[in-house]
Amino acid sequence: MSGSTFGELFRVTNFGESHGPAIGCVIDGCPPGLALSEADIQPELDRRRPGTSRHVTQRNEPDAVEILSGVYEGQTTGTPICLLIKNTDQRSKDYGNILDTFRPGHADYSYWRKYGLRDPRGGGRSSARLTAPMVGAGAVARKWLKQQYGTEFRGCMTQLGEMEIAFEGWQHVGANPFFAANTSQIAALEDYMDALRKAGDSCGARILVEATGVPVGLGEPLFDKLDADIAYAMMGINAVKGVEIGSGFASVAQRGTEHGDELTPTGFASNNAGGVLGGISTGQDLRVSIAIKPTSSIRSPKASIDRAGSPSTVETFGRHDPCVGIRATPIAEAMLALVLMDHALRHRAQCGDVQHQLPAIAAQRP
Amino acid sequence: MSGSTFGELFRVTNFGESHGPAIGCVIDGCPPGLALSEADIQPELDRRRPGTSRHVTQRNEPDAVEILSGVYEGQTTGTPICLLIKNTDQRSKDYGNILDTFRPGHADYSYWRKYGLRDPRGGGRSSARLTAPMVGAGAVARKWLKQQYGTEFRGCMTQLGEMEIAFEGWQHVGANPFFAANTSQIAALEDYMDALRKAGDSCGARILVEATGVPVGLGEPLFDKLDADIAYAMMGINAVKGVEIGSGFASVAQRGTEHGDELTPTGFASNNAGGVLGGISTGQDLRVSIAIKPTSSIRSPKASIDRAGSPSTVETFGRHDPCVGIRATPIAEAMLALVLMDHALRHRAQCGDVQHQLPAIAAQRP
Amino acid sequence: MSGSTFGELFRVTNFGESHGPAIGCVIDGCPPGLALSEADIQPELDRRRPGTSRHVTQRNEPDAVEILSGVYEGQTTGTPICLLIKNTDQRSKDYGNILDTFRPGHADYSYWRKYGLRDPRGGGRSSARLTAPMVGAGAVARKWLKQQYGTEFRGCMTQLGEMEIAFEGWQHVGANPFFAANTSQIAALEDYMDALRKAGDSCGARILVEATGVPVGLGEPLFDKLDADIAYAMMGINAVKGVEIGSGFASVAQRGTEHGDELTPTGFASNNAGGVLGGISTGQDLRVSIAIKPTSSIRSPKASIDRAGSPSTVETFGRHDPCVGIRATPIAEAMLALVLMDHALRHRAQCGDVQHQLPAIAAQRP
Amino acid sequence: MSGSTFGELFRVTNFGESHGPAIGCVIDGCPPGLALSEADIQPELDRRRPGTSRHVTQRNEPDAVEILSGVYEGQTTGTPICLLIKNTDQRSKDYGNILDTFRPGHADYSYWRKYGLRDPRGGGRSSARLTAPMVGAGAVARKWLKQQYGTEFRGCMTQLGEMEIAFEGWQHVGANPFFAANTSQIAALEDYMDALRKAGDSCGARILVEATGVPVGLGEPLFDKLDADIAYAMMGINAVKGVEIGSGFASVAQRGTEHGDELTPTGFASNNAGGVLGGISTGQDLRVSIAIKPTSSIRSPKASIDRAGSPSTVETFGRHDPCVGIRATPIAEAMLALVLMDHALRHRAQCGDVQHQLPAIAAQRP
Repeated sequence: MSGSTFGELFRVTNFGESHGPAIGCVIDGCPPGLALSEADIQPELDRRRPGTSRHVTQRNEPDAVEILSGVYEGQTTGTPICLLIKNTDQRSKDYGNILDTFRPGHADYSYWRKYGLRDPRGGGRSSARLTAPMVGAGAVARKWLKQQYGTEFRGCMTQLGEMEIAFEGWQHVGANPFFAANTSQIAALEDYMDALRKAGDSCGARILVEATGVPVGLGEPLFDKLDADIAYAMMGINAVKGVEIGSGFASVAQRGTEHGDELTPTGFASNNAGGVLGGISTGQDLRVSIAIKPTSSIRSPKASIDRAGSPSTVETFGRHDPCVGIRATPIAEAMLALVLMDHALRHRAQCGDVQHQLPAIAAQRP
Repeated sequence: MSGSTFGELFRVTNFGESHGPAIGCVIDGCPPGLALSEADIQPELDRRRPGTSRHVTQRNEPDAVEILSGVYEGQTTGTPICLLIKNTDQRSKDYGNILDTFRPGHADYSYWRKYGLRDPRGGGRSSARLTAPMVGAGAVARKWLKQQYGTEFRGCMTQLGEMEIAFEGWQHVGANPFFAANTSQIAALEDYMDALRKAGDSCGARILVEATGVPVGLGEPLFDKLDADIAYAMMGINAVKGVEIGSGFASVAQRGTEHGDELTPTGFASNNAGGVLGGISTGQDLRVSIAIKPTSSIRSPKASIDRAGSPSTVETFGRHDPCVGIRATPIAEAMLALVLMDHALRHRAQCGDVQHQLPAIAAQRP
Repeated sequence: MSGSTFGELFRVTNFGESHGPAIGCVIDGCPPGLALSEADIQPELDRRRPGTSRHVTQRNEPDAVEILSGVYEGQTTGTPICLLIKNTDQRSKDYGNILDTFRPGHADYSYWRKYGLRDPRGGGRSSARLTAPMVGAGAVARKWLKQQYGTEFRGCMTQLGEMEIAFEGWQHVGANPFFAANTSQIAALEDYMDALRKAGDSCGARILVEATGVPVGLGEPLFDKLDADIAYAMMGINAVKGVEIGSGFASVAQRGTEHGDELTPTGFASNNAGGVLGGISTGQDLRVSIAIKPTSSIRSPKASIDRAGSPSTVETFGRHDPCVGIRATPIAEAMLALVLMDHALRHRAQCGDVQHQLPAIAAQRP
Repeated sequence: MSGSTFGELFRVTNFGESHGPAIGCVIDGCPPGLALSEADIQPELDRRRPGTSRHVTQRNEPDAVEILSGVYEGQTTGTPICLLIKNTDQRSKDYGNILDTFRPGHADYSYWRKYGLRDPRGGGRSSARLTAPMVGAGAVARKWLKQQYGTEFRGCMTQLGEMEIAFEGWQHVGANPFFAANTSQIAALEDYMDALRKAGDSCGARILVEATGVPVGLGEPLFDKLDADIAYAMMGINAVKGVEIGSGFASVAQRGTEHGDELTPTGFASNNAGGVLGGISTGQDLRVSIAIKPTSSIRSPKASIDRAGSPSTVETFGRHDPCVGIRATPIAEAMLALVLMDHALRHRAQCGDVQHQLPAIAAQRP
């Protein structure tokens, strides 16, 4: 409602600013009895962490997560879990030059117009740094979903700027700084980013995320559709400008005879739907693709105005990701996990845990 | 939460099924004192109505709206407005052949798996007919937003199947059955649809919707972002598989120097953002594009299974839109209006009605 | 949020006004597969219905309920259930004398100040008539709770004006017009009401409601406590000015040694708690008591002001209950059922259906 | 929903446990531009703080509040405000004897049944210590409401155990450890508490809270009534068993001729309503009374069972308030402020800031 809480039944309330003392979140509604410690959460935060390659911001944050509440003797108690991440490497002076003017493409302007004042240090509340607590919350959701249903999440970059990245295998994703499911194009991607950085410019990216082992029947019929909630979650990630489910925009040019995924006694014959029909999961893999725009904080000068409305020019120094899409894969996975977690609990509420299984195609679920 | 309510402060609760006695909605939170009668709502319903050309379903529904509550002596009272639309042309027997099997690409399967039973008459609750009450509610939102801020909504089809439709002018939209902002391609579109119908097949469409005269500052910072809520609203429309804001997926291949819309004392120099920065409206036109998949109810036979999991074949007779995208434009406009209405009220709650105007660029708002 | 929806997971949205064409509600989130027809709902509405004795309003409404959606072949489908009750005996002219002035103790004044206008016909939206759809929704909740957990609801009047009514047995409640669990005082109650009616005055009442067979563990820890939600539901019933759980205000003068209900291997030894500890149900009977103020619409003249702020005198004619408490018992039972239903679904969401039973005291639950 | 968030538009999410590292809350939806620092909040926390007299728990907590986010250069930014209060004086070993058994009258039992496990240290999440962050959040609400509308809050104890406390003047409330609006009975109250403590027993209390300078028109018509939300807030405070608005349970024995507050050109002639009619504020003072049960943690032995269901005896040592009502006054004031704050924002959303004033009685509002 007021913009800092995600989810209805697995409810994550996020707080903090890029350059305040700490960021974090409160997770309310986690089922009791889940074994949980910081060690379950930290690895996901490490995947998203800044400063891990020359292609991302050089801000050096350990992003060490601390559980402040909701866990007793190694188990969740059913009461709210507070995750705290201290900010350690703020350099607010880097941002001095944008105090009175607005970066084109950045939230500086809209925040200032909405609230009449803003915290300019590192983008304040509009910083992508605020995705860190969501990655933490996502790790909790992932652990529960995996134990309960065998659901797992994965993602990869499929396009960097104008370069499409061929899918060569999920095993490659962790072996390069781009989350590319690819080995042959990594050198080219590195060169591309080096050139971009030298030019003081930035580029966009396209990310694919998937969930496997998805329970059937998640999602509500008219609103609160599973795909609508996924679209909401994804479009809410910083810099995202487009979301597709399954065949997405390509489905416009498909015929009905081609698009509708046929059913067989052993499962679906294709997955144009991306795992959702009528807003409700089919048990197939969820497939979601998102478009991330180029970073708006760039060294190259751009025309803008100042707070009095007079013309001005902005060049952004400080430490920025030249492509925010590079670190977006674990974020998108986490948001997808949070949506599924919330819907898994909603489904239990109304329909109970019983699955109305078709015996013959039960095999498609782990 | 349970899937039938849209919005937080301008809250629309939808009820009914395609072949039940009536469909409708309850609008809660409408500001008091708005002059309102059925005559404000009916024209929008007429734009969406079935049976208006040979390219849409021949189901003949007048879709006459009745206001059951919330209006006294021609003005809204601030209490809930119930809109009722009676179903008059149900032919449930048309659907007899899909009672025990599942149309590929349709919600038949996922509903049945979720609930363990389903109402098969006309798709029951998953029917696109349930968008009619939303168009009605949207008309109320449109009237208030226009009076309060001068906000207006418009939309057009930009692609039908594989045919891109050139934009020739908004004035053409009402003059053809496709909501195309075009005159020169209409004959070709008619031929395309005639051929498709003869083939017993269906196709997708791409729709653009816009809002003009948008107040600055609508949308919340981290979640409940304006663009995220738009994505949610759009992806929730039947058959939508993709949503873009502003330059959308094209922004992936843009550079930061190109994408970020420069500010000048008289307004923005471009609109790659589509009217939203950091989840908050900038006062520019909102621009949203959606992908609609081909209708899943087609005459051509497709492989499926029955409720016992045995192989079966489905051919759908009955009266279906061969391209659900044809009637989607007024629906998408209505959903966009509902999102803006809700955020306009949210903004008043937290920030009041005061606009933090930059005097020099005030001109961009009506 | 906007005042017309009750509940989070079993969500009832109420619409209509006392003298509009119809009143009703939309129930969203009802579990699928519940056998349901009008015959399950009508008896509860009949218990609340006006015109059944000389001690209540003589407005003659059959209050016949119609299910407009959400039920297919006699079973709930999991989609929204719309209940419609047509208004048949409106006499709006009866209210002509209160168009421009405000009844002391009535919502006339506060509505007018809130919205700047109001529907004066029969109190419009502030009429107790709007409880009828809640009684209907409550009947659905009662049926599900009884089937699932054996939960049942009952209530009685324990005080009428200054007369305390002795509890003689639940079996008497249906045998007198007061919902008194009593036979010996009925004649005295009749005389009391006859005298009051002749005097053109009104009185208050105190009602006790209980739930038996309550599952253990319903309610949330800090907010959304079961007793807090019950207090919300009860205080929201027209004319209620006080709510007690268990020993209520009497607990102020109790000692800790007396108040705390001891546990034994076969159950609790007493029920000062009223069935709730720390906001969570204990499995004991829920016990709730409410205070209902005297009706504000009375024939005796009272001082007031008109819309211009000038002094005026109000005498209310028309058909009013001289004690709104007389028909309040089925309403309070219904609201208690709705609270429990919502919490039963919330509990399933977070904790699943498993009950953490103490084997030795399981006997206290049916 | 999941029990840790209070409010809809001024939304406070509470986290922490009595004996964890810290407790706190996240306030979302605070209007931007409010001057705010810890100095605005700490005084209210100091009023509620333990260890301030011999009549309350001797746990020595400074309850020093720290603002972690949402304030920039001394002003609220409109983004979430995180308040953190570190726990410094936990002595978890004090609670060792209640690990395996359940205190009669305490949430030990219901928590364990709900979640299947519980954090026994100091009551974990069910501790009254969790009201501290709400008092902090309440201080923010109070500051805004006072600036915006002149609204103020006050409260006092009106009964301690069986002793009624005469109202002698608001000025006395801060001058004694009981929040009594009284000087003449203080010595007797001290003696009463000393005797109770020696006896190893506890007692209840009755608290009155008021708001003055209340805007007209707050509250929603059917649900989300102002008085219903107050009842919810009050019944949610630890140990509360009853809530009254205005004349409360006494209204049962009133006649309509007596109860309905007459209106005059200069204001209301009485306040039986307690400031609310039809769920909506009238501009009169809000008057709320609550009943607090005796503390369940007492030294005197009581019968109980252990986790296996076998009989056991509980005596509670550790540091407990012998009357939790003694520190309840600032808590009840804070909760009342949070309810009004939320409704003030809701009202702005739907009706705007305009007040529909009766000129002649405008004087009753500051």
